[in-house]
Amino acid sequence: MRIGMIGAGALGLYYGALLQKAGHDVHFLLRRDYQSIISNGLQVKSPRGNFMLSDVQGYRRVEEIGVVDLVLIGLKAYSNDQMASLVAPLVGPQTVLLTLQNGLGNEEVLARAFGAHHVIGGVAFLCCNRGEPGVVNHLDQGAVRLAEFADGLTERVIKLSDLFTSASIPCEACADLQKIRWEKLAWNIPFNGLCALTGLSTDRLLSCPEMVTLIKQVMFEVVAAANSQGLSEAIDADAFIQRLLDVTAGMGPYKPSMMVDRLENRPIELEAIYGVPLERAKTVGMPMVRVAMLHALLMVSEVSTREQGCQVMADKAAVE
Amino acid sequence: MRIGMIGAGALGLYYGALLQKAGHDVHFLLRRDYQSIISNGLQVKSPRGNFMLSDVQGYRRVEEIGVVDLVLIGLKAYSNDQMASLVAPLVGPQTVLLTLQNGLGNEEVLARAFGAHHVIGGVAFLCCNRGEPGVVNHLDQGAVRLAEFADGLTERVIKLSDLFTSASIPCEACADLQKIRWEKLAWNIPFNGLCALTGLSTDRLLSCPEMVTLIKQVMFEVVAAANSQGLSEAIDADAFIQRLLDVTAGMGPYKPSMMVDRLENRPIELEAIYGVPLERAKTVGMPMVRVAMLHALLMVSEVSTREQGCQVMADKAAVE
Repeated sequence: MRIGMIGAGALGLYYGALLQKAGHDVHFLLRRDYQSIISNGLQVKSPRGNFMLSDVQGYRRVEEIGVVDLVLIGLKAYSNDQMASLVAPLVGPQTVLLTLQNGLGNEEVLARAFGAHHVIGGVAFLCCNRGEPGVVNHLDQGAVRLAEFADGLTERVIKLSDLFTSASIPCEACADLQKIRWEKLAWNIPFNGLCALTGLSTDRLLSCPEMVTLIKQVMFEVVAAANSQGLSEAIDADAFIQRLLDVTAGMGPYKPSMMVDRLENRPIELEAIYGVPLERAKTVGMPMVRVAMLHALLMVSEVSTREQGCQVMADKAAVE
Repeated sequence: MRIGMIGAGALGLYYGALLQKAGHDVHFLLRRDYQSIISNGLQVKSPRGNFMLSDVQGYRRVEEIGVVDLVLIGLKAYSNDQMASLVAPLVGPQTVLLTLQNGLGNEEVLARAFGAHHVIGGVAFLCCNRGEPGVVNHLDQGAVRLAEFADGLTERVIKLSDLFTSASIPCEACADLQKIRWEKLAWNIPFNGLCALTGLSTDRLLSCPEMVTLIKQVMFEVVAAANSQGLSEAIDADAFIQRLLDVTAGMGPYKPSMMVDRLENRPIELEAIYGVPLERAKTVGMPMVRVAMLHALLMVSEVSTREQGCQVMADKAAVE
């Protein structure tokens, strides 16, 4: 399958590398690591085994890639204003657009630009980061869940899920995109924001009982809001939250993407992870008091970070 | 009147200097600035007029001060475990103990050690900080409100209030200590914590509409909790909160004491300003959701600050 990877940060490089390793024809839009990857290849370091791709098809301009069967989108959501123009040169009548971005509202941007029937949403539960140029570090997890934006469970999603699974990316085809998106938000909303705000990794938050209480309270707000969105099946808050906390405890000293963005003085994904979910929850009368407070704190600390003289990096198309 | 000043930080030095200037016999327990003040005097810089006290009675040990008529206490509340032993050598049968500390629970420490009838609580609305050694900067405000810990409005409080006023410290004698403490908390709880957490001064928070919304919501929680404490008269939330915001807007780029503590890697007054008020509100079924969240965030960021290798300064007896 001919695959284009737009937004090749840690997530994009990792999944793209696995797909290429499985024999697919993967084309990466590269920015920061272009020269290094073209010259020296792409190295994946992972507890499941390191590997090296010495021959990577990397590009500086999307126009050089041409039409593909599948576009994987790993752009940071704060770069969504560039998404349509970055994706457009890759889209033919049958092209599937799969966004693996965080938060809510990303599929809608693609649907508006290219039509809802092109769009599949994917939720990645992946711990990874970028190392030195040309290196991506896979730390833990890595499973993906896919669902159609416009329809329920289709043959197309099942096939795509099989393709991922056969490329060593554990993948599940799901019927309800809203449900899988909100389930991911129940992790992202507490951990991304609280780690970014406090400068502490996940294990450090979990070592403070008051913070665990707050994390659970935030998760309950998110699950309650999720369950008010007309999901196909309600999320069982207690069991689900306990599972999220258990999984997080197993991740060790993890720095969520928003914390990394903040540490590297990039913008943070405020709208997709907080703004849009708050708006959708408010529409159905769920105020999410603590989530709103976290949103306000992140918003003002974003201003603070900027004004402390931090430069927003030119590489705005970096990726979770 | 013979006055002892325990905890001569910015607040203690400022009020002590005004009382000495008005002719009172003021004795300062000094730490950080001892040598400078003994050698060169104490300088007050204020928009109401600078002045200099060249002859200050400063001490390194409380035992050298002896019994006084009035002890002013400006210790940071996180040093309350030292309060009884610092105050004891100054206390005779008629000695009045006036704590000008922030938050709740300070009078109780004094009452347990010396008897409730000795104790008066004072609430200072004062913007000041320390400059170079021997210099205190008065920035804005400065009024004090006094009330008995054990009784209502007494002759003693009225006389003390008159003494302050005649020393150019605008002062009001009040009947209800809980009310004036909680009214101050309605400012301290949002601004101290949010400024400490975000590293932004008050004007910067007020320039962000989402933050103003949050500040108001926090203030409403505090006023609701206050009004559940059996005050002599309920606080009119809308009018009172608007007045607090107007006063704060007039203060310009102010760094609250907790923000300064954080910037200078000292502990912060978590218990007095958050822990005890939360406990008292909880007792009457007022959860103060946002205040509790702020408390948890400050608690974990306190841990973070410490573990980032910051040294807690030896001068633990600094003052708001």
